[in-house]
Amino acid sequence: MILDKSLIDQHNEDKHASHQRRFQALAAVLSDENQHVDALLDKIAAFQVAIPSWALGTGGTRFGRFAGGGEPRSLEEKIEDVGLLHTLNQSSGAISLHIPWDIPQNPGDIKRLAASFDLKFDAVNSNTFQDQELQNFSYKYGSLSHTDRHVRDQAITHNIEVIRHGIDLGSKALTIWLSDGTDFPGQQNFRRSFERTLDSFQQIYAELPDDWKLFVEYKPYEPHFYSTVISDWGTSLLFCQKLGQKALGLVDLGHHLPNTNIEQIVSRFLMEGKLGGFHFNDSKYGDDDLTVGSIRPYQLFLIFNELVEGMSSPELSNPALSWMIDASHNVKDPLEDLLQSVEAIKTAYAQALLVDRKALEKAQEENDTVLAQEILQHAYKTDVRPLLAQSRLQSGAALHPLAFYRETKVREELVRHRGAKAFATGL
Amino acid sequence: MILDKSLIDQHNEDKHASHQRRFQALAAVLSDENQHVDALLDKIAAFQVAIPSWALGTGGTRFGRFAGGGEPRSLEEKIEDVGLLHTLNQSSGAISLHIPWDIPQNPGDIKRLAASFDLKFDAVNSNTFQDQELQNFSYKYGSLSHTDRHVRDQAITHNIEVIRHGIDLGSKALTIWLSDGTDFPGQQNFRRSFERTLDSFQQIYAELPDDWKLFVEYKPYEPHFYSTVISDWGTSLLFCQKLGQKALGLVDLGHHLPNTNIEQIVSRFLMEGKLGGFHFNDSKYGDDDLTVGSIRPYQLFLIFNELVEGMSSPELSNPALSWMIDASHNVKDPLEDLLQSVEAIKTAYAQALLVDRKALEKAQEENDTVLAQEILQHAYKTDVRPLLAQSRLQSGAALHPLAFYRETKVREELVRHRGAKAFATGL
Amino acid sequence: MILDKSLIDQHNEDKHASHQRRFQALAAVLSDENQHVDALLDKIAAFQVAIPSWALGTGGTRFGRFAGGGEPRSLEEKIEDVGLLHTLNQSSGAISLHIPWDIPQNPGDIKRLAASFDLKFDAVNSNTFQDQELQNFSYKYGSLSHTDRHVRDQAITHNIEVIRHGIDLGSKALTIWLSDGTDFPGQQNFRRSFERTLDSFQQIYAELPDDWKLFVEYKPYEPHFYSTVISDWGTSLLFCQKLGQKALGLVDLGHHLPNTNIEQIVSRFLMEGKLGGFHFNDSKYGDDDLTVGSIRPYQLFLIFNELVEGMSSPELSNPALSWMIDASHNVKDPLEDLLQSVEAIKTAYAQALLVDRKALEKAQEENDTVLAQEILQHAYKTDVRPLLAQSRLQSGAALHPLAFYRETKVREELVRHRGAKAFATGL
Amino acid sequence: MILDKSLIDQHNEDKHASHQRRFQALAAVLSDENQHVDALLDKIAAFQVAIPSWALGTGGTRFGRFAGGGEPRSLEEKIEDVGLLHTLNQSSGAISLHIPWDIPQNPGDIKRLAASFDLKFDAVNSNTFQDQELQNFSYKYGSLSHTDRHVRDQAITHNIEVIRHGIDLGSKALTIWLSDGTDFPGQQNFRRSFERTLDSFQQIYAELPDDWKLFVEYKPYEPHFYSTVISDWGTSLLFCQKLGQKALGLVDLGHHLPNTNIEQIVSRFLMEGKLGGFHFNDSKYGDDDLTVGSIRPYQLFLIFNELVEGMSSPELSNPALSWMIDASHNVKDPLEDLLQSVEAIKTAYAQALLVDRKALEKAQEENDTVLAQEILQHAYKTDVRPLLAQSRLQSGAALHPLAFYRETKVREELVRHRGAKAFATGL
Repeated sequence: MILDKSLIDQHNEDKHASHQRRFQALAAVLSDENQHVDALLDKIAAFQVAIPSWALGTGGTRFGRFAGGGEPRSLEEKIEDVGLLHTLNQSSGAISLHIPWDIPQNPGDIKRLAASFDLKFDAVNSNTFQDQELQNFSYKYGSLSHTDRHVRDQAITHNIEVIRHGIDLGSKALTIWLSDGTDFPGQQNFRRSFERTLDSFQQIYAELPDDWKLFVEYKPYEPHFYSTVISDWGTSLLFCQKLGQKALGLVDLGHHLPNTNIEQIVSRFLMEGKLGGFHFNDSKYGDDDLTVGSIRPYQLFLIFNELVEGMSSPELSNPALSWMIDASHNVKDPLEDLLQSVEAIKTAYAQALLVDRKALEKAQEENDTVLAQEILQHAYKTDVRPLLAQSRLQSGAALHPLAFYRETKVREELVRHRGAKAFATGL
Repeated sequence: MILDKSLIDQHNEDKHASHQRRFQALAAVLSDENQHVDALLDKIAAFQVAIPSWALGTGGTRFGRFAGGGEPRSLEEKIEDVGLLHTLNQSSGAISLHIPWDIPQNPGDIKRLAASFDLKFDAVNSNTFQDQELQNFSYKYGSLSHTDRHVRDQAITHNIEVIRHGIDLGSKALTIWLSDGTDFPGQQNFRRSFERTLDSFQQIYAELPDDWKLFVEYKPYEPHFYSTVISDWGTSLLFCQKLGQKALGLVDLGHHLPNTNIEQIVSRFLMEGKLGGFHFNDSKYGDDDLTVGSIRPYQLFLIFNELVEGMSSPELSNPALSWMIDASHNVKDPLEDLLQSVEAIKTAYAQALLVDRKALEKAQEENDTVLAQEILQHAYKTDVRPLLAQSRLQSGAALHPLAFYRETKVREELVRHRGAKAFATGL
Repeated sequence: MILDKSLIDQHNEDKHASHQRRFQALAAVLSDENQHVDALLDKIAAFQVAIPSWALGTGGTRFGRFAGGGEPRSLEEKIEDVGLLHTLNQSSGAISLHIPWDIPQNPGDIKRLAASFDLKFDAVNSNTFQDQELQNFSYKYGSLSHTDRHVRDQAITHNIEVIRHGIDLGSKALTIWLSDGTDFPGQQNFRRSFERTLDSFQQIYAELPDDWKLFVEYKPYEPHFYSTVISDWGTSLLFCQKLGQKALGLVDLGHHLPNTNIEQIVSRFLMEGKLGGFHFNDSKYGDDDLTVGSIRPYQLFLIFNELVEGMSSPELSNPALSWMIDASHNVKDPLEDLLQSVEAIKTAYAQALLVDRKALEKAQEENDTVLAQEILQHAYKTDVRPLLAQSRLQSGAALHPLAFYRETKVREELVRHRGAKAFATGL
Repeated sequence: MILDKSLIDQHNEDKHASHQRRFQALAAVLSDENQHVDALLDKIAAFQVAIPSWALGTGGTRFGRFAGGGEPRSLEEKIEDVGLLHTLNQSSGAISLHIPWDIPQNPGDIKRLAASFDLKFDAVNSNTFQDQELQNFSYKYGSLSHTDRHVRDQAITHNIEVIRHGIDLGSKALTIWLSDGTDFPGQQNFRRSFERTLDSFQQIYAELPDDWKLFVEYKPYEPHFYSTVISDWGTSLLFCQKLGQKALGLVDLGHHLPNTNIEQIVSRFLMEGKLGGFHFNDSKYGDDDLTVGSIRPYQLFLIFNELVEGMSSPELSNPALSWMIDASHNVKDPLEDLLQSVEAIKTAYAQALLVDRKALEKAQEENDTVLAQEILQHAYKTDVRPLLAQSRLQSGAALHPLAFYRETKVREELVRHRGAKAFATGL
């Protein structure tokens, strides 16, 4: 399904006057505060968030899945869905594939299809948390960390194949979320699990092209409930240190113990030049994979506050970051959920851009805690929606992507094309 | 598959001498401490734990399931498996069914089959956390709490049917774990959800036979990740208060927020005469559904300490309790996991029986905190395994059920009968 | 120290033009959305938050306290400080006293002093978490729950005295935060602790004037680290049910286990007509007592969303609520901290007033989760600061209380009067 | 106060027969299992736990402190108290001092006094979490991380002085628990705080004698409630990596977020050769500083399981570890609490020694999760009390130290000597 851009123009035309009133009022306030509105608009427009192929269908839990309709049935349809999002918001210009579900049969065709939607291929993702049919060895007791060399070799080979598929499509990074872990005390020797995993990683790392990165994700629990091999940022950093320059940590917002100060972890990774990227989502309890910004929007802002500070600091030399969403849409239309998520990410980014860094630095230097809070919250309380809308307007996207999506009945159209019982493949 | 009891006799014969040495040493120590060993053995023997029908197969997570072999393919085979456990430990004399997966086609036959293994039917469980094929309305947005009366009616009808099946089999209780909840702020009005649920509960309660109980389980999150309708013991108690005498709270050990003092909740329910029963399991992070006693055995003991105190207190008039396991065996043989779980439960029970209640009461009265800890830990540190083994010996069970299970290659036999790809139905 | 109101007028004059631009822009947007701006301003102006007498000095931890200067040395000076706050923001029109530290020697004088600042006396607070010199019995092992009747009687008598002091001053409520609890398993019998506490409560309740309320606060841990007698909202509700109509639950935002859904607890209390009031603060880990809105501002908004809904619902008959701050200012000037806290509370309140309740109800009825989130976040994202400023302007308060406080060097003045080493009494 | 050893002999005489029956029974069982009982006894006897000087008095919270009587009033009396413990259990042969409270005026005398009790001086501890009178600069906003160089220099100088005192007494390690952190987002720049701290550490490290170690403790929160500079093991390890070989991580059991897998952290530190030592205590919620083993005894066992495995592994070259208690005795007699804590530590150690490592390794290699659990829990369930008692008997300590302490009325004697209102100095 390809959106008729004239419909977007019409939508923008209809909303234009109301938008302009709000944008002008905000622009005036920001100018008063010595913000460069055009520079802000450029930065906001340039910020692109990759959509993972597995997030285009309805998600579920171990207790079941309540599917919606019109879900993409193939890699081509997944690319179409991301293209649709990108057309709506001009902020989702990349797709992140999951192998084995998204193996491109004809990479050339797939690249052309993506290009027709102005999409790039972000990091490719391997999978060893599930067994596939016809697989020789089971990952029940681990993959890259398994005690049996045959299982490790199978998982290493799979990762190398994922790199190959990524090369075909123009990806520049491999993300490994290693679900390996244990459910009971004593099940494995922690140290030996680490060492076997390191050995496996090294073999994969050796196959990585020079301009690629390896993202080492961490997670404290689930699907295993006693320990995981890469349980926290400290372990991720240890692996990255031992692997080399191309290995970088990946932060998934839901992969932390209760009350973790995630923004400090972001700062630590940046300090060490070892931050690779993000999996955005939100959560209240564990890895809930909820819509970004739906539960703790202030935490998201504080994370972006670190990112903006770190990326603009001349002292740091962290490589450019990858931004991805990793959410599970159990009770929302996946495309609506993703529109909300991208908006939340860009909201936090825009707010973080507004922080008066010089004033903040001075307040920090003088231990003026009250003022430091005022400075941060001044940026956070600013209603940046007109700024984001203006950025979209200038990029040819819809002023109100979600409203447009509903008005033009996109989901209904997808259901018509793909059926009410079309379920996305993947996870 | 029916175990040859002569094999158990042989096993017990082989282990007898070694067991007797240990048991006699322990019995001597306990007698020194004025414990009545025979009375202890009787209580331990009488303690029976129900096995839920869904725990006989391999469990999984949203990321996948790594099945084992020889799993029961039918209600009859589930009963056989529980019968097998009961033969091994003489402590698992009941099965708890899950509708719609375990609907008895011919209740008379099913009852006779169960009786042949000396099994009773414990609480029956309804299910509205998943949609079934041919169902008119979806539970995606709730069941007993749904905004649409048609959906609520369907769920009410289902629960009433579950009662009917239970009546056919001789059950005396209905357990409702209501997964209804929300994933996002604003999704539902908390109060109206409660009120609709109460109305649905009342209709189900009205159908409950006089000698039945309704167990109202609570859980803070999962499968929904912002709120659940019956989120905590306070909410469960409110429902029970409003429903009437037959409604009682059910405590699942994994259904609590981090650091919750569960033993105090047990005490509160008992104080109000509103404790119905338990779903035993263990966990480190959330509702991990691990083997009972594998992570926090001391907490389990403290819970039994409350139960023994409460059940023996003349001040209290709580009805008799139901004991059930509710675990998910993702990386263990389900039957081995259940043998370990039952053993852990009875261990905690036996240790709690050893607590010197008079001395404890005196220490509490005098605020002698050090002594109170000594008294509890004295009981906890006692190695009660010979006591449990002796109780099994006297009941005709195996001295070492797990060792026997492995020696006689029960799983291999089940695989041979049922196949390596026989997957349990249910959940 | 009494603020010269002409300085406030001058401040407002200086900021007037800039404020008006922002307010007019916001008012235009709100009017577009069918909000009644004048009605909003009235509600915001009427919302008053009580300041506890113990929050006027620097707080500390068990590891020490780093005092600031110019802290109030007496009840009179505490009242002056609250008067100062109220002059600045016209939103802090009440003080909540802590006995024994704030015993009024001459209640008539104290009432006149408070009236001169337009202050009322909110709930009075008893203290049995510390021993005072000359006290007969120690609270080391509890007070209202103590095993020894003499200790309980002493604590009961103290609470009755607090009521008497409150009557003298025109208070209408007693807040009991009962720190009683245990540090070790077995230290106390949970049920008997509850029963002794209930008996003590009943004796205090009997002395409560007809138009008074008793607020029953709950807290899961600290200063005791295994259990507390009133550990959660369920226990608080049980006490309130058993005591009678005047007993109501009090929610302190920091008194919950990790990840608790506090807004649902608020809804439950309201549903039962049993919500008494709030102790506002913020926290990341435990009872951190940080500035309101400094860590989880969205949670605060969601709580106010419940409160606005509940207070406006014709189905509910909960009594009017008490709003108090309970924070500890360890690294901020206490008065600045309180100004930030009051502003955060009123921000959340104003945002909650903006929620389109009809639209939300419709979205809920239709399970339109995406839209429900949009509706809530639309209100939350609105920058309501101009609305609050306008409300202050109309009430004669400062447009920017914190800026004014710093410009006029209030703290320096207080230090000059009271000394650099004047430490607040209390806690 | 010096214990009359003949009283201990008498006590042991009285308990001897009963002890021997239990010990012989256990020894027989252990021998059956191919354990070398004498080797076990030697290892248990050699295991010594250092007592911190601040743990000899009653602890408290920010809400108050309920002191006991007879607390040590001087460094000399603190040494006497540890001597007393060591006489009772022959397992507390070291004291860990806290400067500035324990500055030895005459180190020679102090060393002689300690030697008379057979005590060594374990790690010395610096303090910058509190201001002392006559101090030039305040640590309110940090010490080694402070933005102001003068404050950092003062803190560095203090640490160097602590090293000097340690050298005088024969200590071989400096423990730095750096309380520096922030209470609010934005208060400090995370990276710069780290860099300033590193610079300060390097200056201290440069003053460390060659045979000394620097222990870098971590803690996620308290006394600051938003962030701490050394928040987790990953940060501790980063500092140690950057400082050099003598810098090692220190694990305090209470310094973790909810649900942290501490035993895995222990394994990680050991793998990197960077584990320095332990601060033992127990907790349910945060840094509760409760008696070791009173809340999670199985977790303690699992930690010792890692330690025993790591210390005996030929693959690892971690330096010898320091064992210290760090607890706060709010409702128990401090000496009784310490006796219970040392007993709990040695219990976990003894149980960990019993683990059949070869069998465990085989089960791990074969992913036999059920068996791995059986092996660990077999060791854990063994009642090792007779083993510990025998070890004490052979070392000349009391069979039942706590019982002996009470029988001989040690506390009463201390109160008689030191007064009912003698409060320990320190923290």
